[in-house]
Amino acid sequence: MKQMRTAVFGASGYAGGELMRLLARHPLVQLGQVFAKSFAGSAISSVHAWDDEDAVFKEFSTAHAVDAEVCFLALPHGEAMEIAPMLLGQGKIVIDLGGDHRLKDRALFEKYYKKQQTSGAVLDEAVYGLPEWNSTAIRASRFVANPGCYATSAILALAPVLAEGLIEPDSIIIDSMSGVSGAGRKAAIEYSFSEVNENVKAYRIGDHQHIPEIETVLGEISEQEVKITFTPHLIPITRGIYSTTYATLSGAFSNSDVNEAFQKHYANKPFVRLPGSIPEVRRVTNTNFIDIYSTVLPERNQVIIISTLDNLVKGAAGQAVQNMNLVCGFPETEGLL
Amino acid sequence: MKQMRTAVFGASGYAGGELMRLLARHPLVQLGQVFAKSFAGSAISSVHAWDDEDAVFKEFSTAHAVDAEVCFLALPHGEAMEIAPMLLGQGKIVIDLGGDHRLKDRALFEKYYKKQQTSGAVLDEAVYGLPEWNSTAIRASRFVANPGCYATSAILALAPVLAEGLIEPDSIIIDSMSGVSGAGRKAAIEYSFSEVNENVKAYRIGDHQHIPEIETVLGEISEQEVKITFTPHLIPITRGIYSTTYATLSGAFSNSDVNEAFQKHYANKPFVRLPGSIPEVRRVTNTNFIDIYSTVLPERNQVIIISTLDNLVKGAAGQAVQNMNLVCGFPETEGLL
Amino acid sequence: MKQMRTAVFGASGYAGGELMRLLARHPLVQLGQVFAKSFAGSAISSVHAWDDEDAVFKEFSTAHAVDAEVCFLALPHGEAMEIAPMLLGQGKIVIDLGGDHRLKDRALFEKYYKKQQTSGAVLDEAVYGLPEWNSTAIRASRFVANPGCYATSAILALAPVLAEGLIEPDSIIIDSMSGVSGAGRKAAIEYSFSEVNENVKAYRIGDHQHIPEIETVLGEISEQEVKITFTPHLIPITRGIYSTTYATLSGAFSNSDVNEAFQKHYANKPFVRLPGSIPEVRRVTNTNFIDIYSTVLPERNQVIIISTLDNLVKGAAGQAVQNMNLVCGFPETEGLL
Amino acid sequence: MKQMRTAVFGASGYAGGELMRLLARHPLVQLGQVFAKSFAGSAISSVHAWDDEDAVFKEFSTAHAVDAEVCFLALPHGEAMEIAPMLLGQGKIVIDLGGDHRLKDRALFEKYYKKQQTSGAVLDEAVYGLPEWNSTAIRASRFVANPGCYATSAILALAPVLAEGLIEPDSIIIDSMSGVSGAGRKAAIEYSFSEVNENVKAYRIGDHQHIPEIETVLGEISEQEVKITFTPHLIPITRGIYSTTYATLSGAFSNSDVNEAFQKHYANKPFVRLPGSIPEVRRVTNTNFIDIYSTVLPERNQVIIISTLDNLVKGAAGQAVQNMNLVCGFPETEGLL
Repeated sequence: MKQMRTAVFGASGYAGGELMRLLARHPLVQLGQVFAKSFAGSAISSVHAWDDEDAVFKEFSTAHAVDAEVCFLALPHGEAMEIAPMLLGQGKIVIDLGGDHRLKDRALFEKYYKKQQTSGAVLDEAVYGLPEWNSTAIRASRFVANPGCYATSAILALAPVLAEGLIEPDSIIIDSMSGVSGAGRKAAIEYSFSEVNENVKAYRIGDHQHIPEIETVLGEISEQEVKITFTPHLIPITRGIYSTTYATLSGAFSNSDVNEAFQKHYANKPFVRLPGSIPEVRRVTNTNFIDIYSTVLPERNQVIIISTLDNLVKGAAGQAVQNMNLVCGFPETEGLL
Repeated sequence: MKQMRTAVFGASGYAGGELMRLLARHPLVQLGQVFAKSFAGSAISSVHAWDDEDAVFKEFSTAHAVDAEVCFLALPHGEAMEIAPMLLGQGKIVIDLGGDHRLKDRALFEKYYKKQQTSGAVLDEAVYGLPEWNSTAIRASRFVANPGCYATSAILALAPVLAEGLIEPDSIIIDSMSGVSGAGRKAAIEYSFSEVNENVKAYRIGDHQHIPEIETVLGEISEQEVKITFTPHLIPITRGIYSTTYATLSGAFSNSDVNEAFQKHYANKPFVRLPGSIPEVRRVTNTNFIDIYSTVLPERNQVIIISTLDNLVKGAAGQAVQNMNLVCGFPETEGLL
Repeated sequence: MKQMRTAVFGASGYAGGELMRLLARHPLVQLGQVFAKSFAGSAISSVHAWDDEDAVFKEFSTAHAVDAEVCFLALPHGEAMEIAPMLLGQGKIVIDLGGDHRLKDRALFEKYYKKQQTSGAVLDEAVYGLPEWNSTAIRASRFVANPGCYATSAILALAPVLAEGLIEPDSIIIDSMSGVSGAGRKAAIEYSFSEVNENVKAYRIGDHQHIPEIETVLGEISEQEVKITFTPHLIPITRGIYSTTYATLSGAFSNSDVNEAFQKHYANKPFVRLPGSIPEVRRVTNTNFIDIYSTVLPERNQVIIISTLDNLVKGAAGQAVQNMNLVCGFPETEGLL
Repeated sequence: MKQMRTAVFGASGYAGGELMRLLARHPLVQLGQVFAKSFAGSAISSVHAWDDEDAVFKEFSTAHAVDAEVCFLALPHGEAMEIAPMLLGQGKIVIDLGGDHRLKDRALFEKYYKKQQTSGAVLDEAVYGLPEWNSTAIRASRFVANPGCYATSAILALAPVLAEGLIEPDSIIIDSMSGVSGAGRKAAIEYSFSEVNENVKAYRIGDHQHIPEIETVLGEISEQEVKITFTPHLIPITRGIYSTTYATLSGAFSNSDVNEAFQKHYANKPFVRLPGSIPEVRRVTNTNFIDIYSTVLPERNQVIIISTLDNLVKGAAGQAVQNMNLVCGFPETEGLL
């Protein structure tokens, strides 16, 4: 099969590196140009585990002629807005791993991202890239907004029980932990080993930019207003998100009612696993799987749903490749198993 | 001042080792005999960082004549019941760091501990050793049931807002993470480095033995029925508990209402700190402090309370020494700052 | 191509699990029976990240009819001796990941392994499975003794400079660190998270069983007596070996002389990389690569050679698959890139 | 006893924080002003675990009137040179934890530190602050150059066997690992959790600034030229140095000859321990002890000496306090046990 050429913008970051690794192994595409800003001109192998010691990151510049049919944007918030319109104007397929195009509501974006939304008309074109719930639209699109890592863990955990009306949509509490790679590859004291090791810290309580993303997407899926409380925590692991979610049951539902909802929606989804026991991060590390487990506490009229994924794979680069597979008409799992 | 002599039972464990370290430095007591079961006869320095290379753990035996006025029991669940009655019968002060004497309700004990409660009459004599809420009774007692590590983090976080009627007593969700030393010093694949590192796992959901302890103590403090949901998680740190607690406000209370409750109850408590920013485990590591922080989410009508402590100090050995200080009439902070 | 069937003995260990993962993905073989001792009957997914939740480990028994052409033995020292002769007698190809068949000298084996060597005649048939130096013999064999993890890191680092006569064969000092998975998957206090985290400890100084393996193999390769000093250290990582090796130059050799030796022997070896900068463990994690770097200290008349590999891949399961590829006539890198 | 007042320059770093902690608890001194550069004006509690939430770091300025008898300089290399002469001119006692005043040989300093030595006349006044070998000079001085962390581990391990003539002075190889806090508290990708975790990397091979310090001090102690090979490695722990040192015996010396040398020089040194088994980092963490262990390999004619210390305590702040104790005429162990 004729291969498509891909390019990665923001290739020196952790998600960018994971993308490069996945695309290099993908049988139906060819990894082409890889762009980086501060590391432009540096050897890729000085940043990532990369065999070709001569290859370097290219100068990031909107003027640069991009030689690729599919462009992945793994950029800090605010930077994809500057480049996506141009790439789309050149007829490229664009998959944006950042947050710039996930929220259609500009006011909401500006409130949580503390930035102006400057993407213009192309924002309306962006399709939310959660394949388990949105594959038809993704297949028909050429501009995909890849979900956030926490958002993926929360939405996939909650959508079935909300869609089936099993929980109260304003009762949701999501308590999440994330590995440090989620903060990106950057020089900052707060992410240094000596600060993170043997430590735990919650952050951005009630203020995290994934809150409106989760509420909006779950609202659309379940056709009702959804309100969540979300607390992210930084813990000393490199990769992984572990979300423990609490919700009040809207009736006297049992474990089998809840399991049925998960089976109904995920039985055929290749990257959702429903293990019979409490999930662990290490089961999903380096994979595109999300493991989801639920248990009803009848005396509390609650359900606890636990979901775990690798923030750099199903939470970023893997899901981006899954989206590319759909957009390009490849098998959904190509290059990901 | 004349020193009291202390003995430690179960000295080869992590809590036992921490007790030895604290008692050895305590200016008003003298660390005497240290007993261990499987490590009896072994050099203490082969187990703990201990300077005297010649000192060994003594044979653990109920027949052994204990030469101490204060006995600390840092034993696996079920073992303190076998020895506490005898020690109390000999007139010793007993501080039990395990769970055997925390629940007066035998049925509740047997449901959660899966063991028969065999302590007999002495159970009624045990005083729950949470100095911030129970110091009068502790001072008058000679038998203290030291609280659980998770329970300490949860009860101290919730008692002020429950006592002041600020939250709904059936709305509480406690999401906790614990370091691995909380599982004790034992040979088990599940606690081996290769399994725990780069991993997270919830466990004993809805079934943990600290649930009835938290519900009972909070119920007594606030004179109402309290119901909680509690999920513990094992994370890759050695020491530390981090609890993020969620509750529905019982009215339109503000951050300052909540802060007032904490100030009212804890302003004079030497080991409770109320930092102005989100707590971190490393701030309390190796100390007897608990750091508590709260924030109201008005749009959610909720309060989030975060508490963190060192499970081996304020969650075990430090709190035990704090209790000894009260029982013996020493200053509460002696040997702990 | 017609697939060969493989079986794994000792599949519940870390090397066994890595073998299962590699064999399941290998395009030219089929993973068949997986045997375990203490975990016989347990779900594979309760031990490893394994998708098929119904699959269980089979009862380990010499009487069991093994349905496979290639048998991998990932067993504790001493157990392969008991089963290899039978499997070879049945005409199977046997690849032994343990230490039972690495040393032909029975006295040396018994000195370092503290066990009797009971393999009998088949011991002479075993070929040392270091493909970079022994591929002709491996291709012709049906019984491969897979090298030790430390030994692989040390021999590959030293063989070129010894073979080319650049260093004094009695001047070698190998200082190595290993991740905890190297100790196997077992319940032991000394490998528990709370003991290993934030710790370093040397062990088996001058007494490790890889010493005679390294000396013998390097002696054969360079046709001279080789004597080494070797100190292994346990450090808090899960996977990885990092060896820093020191040797006295036998003449006024420069960096380019040393590099030439490495280029000469490894230019065409697919799993040996010779990076231009100091290696890091994370570059080789989860790969079958060994990274080797050297630097001459002229004022000290020494060369320092640093080598790093993943102890479970190039140090165990990956090298075992590499050996199977050679024995079976497959491309050397099949299933390993 | 009348207390002395102390000041800390560079108080926002890890060594500075440890100094503050030690000085605050020291019974004979009073922690006064704490100065920081980039964190001037910030709350101390935003950086270190520090109870007084109102206290802030003071503006670092040479013009500032320092109100202290003893000044500790915990500054990046090159900065102590700028301030020490002024403080000494004001009659202060100065203890410099950095490297500016350890090497009297200006050329050597400039070669390894890549900086000009601008201290002027006061350089000659600086006394090398290794109390186990230099206590007489330290007691008589008012300007102490505190040793480097690696240097302390290496010099204390080697000085007795060199002083007693047991090893060849040009045969020494020191292979060391360090925790990440040794790199200081700074924003740098290379020290971020995601880079350091599950990783090992050697650095500055043959070029580390502690090489001339170790060679010079050991040369002075043993009155001969000493030449070393030194390789530092960064490993994923926060605190701790672990040095494994190799040397050729200068005669047929036994373990008891070597032990005798250590006993002779260290029997009365309060912070040197000579454990009977292989040392571990966690035995010295948070203490001012160094643990030293040696073993002779007769068949190799070598001795291996292992030493371990906490780089922030015996390797920095603890040793600085030990030096202050000597200069001020306090008991050597005051505030350090």
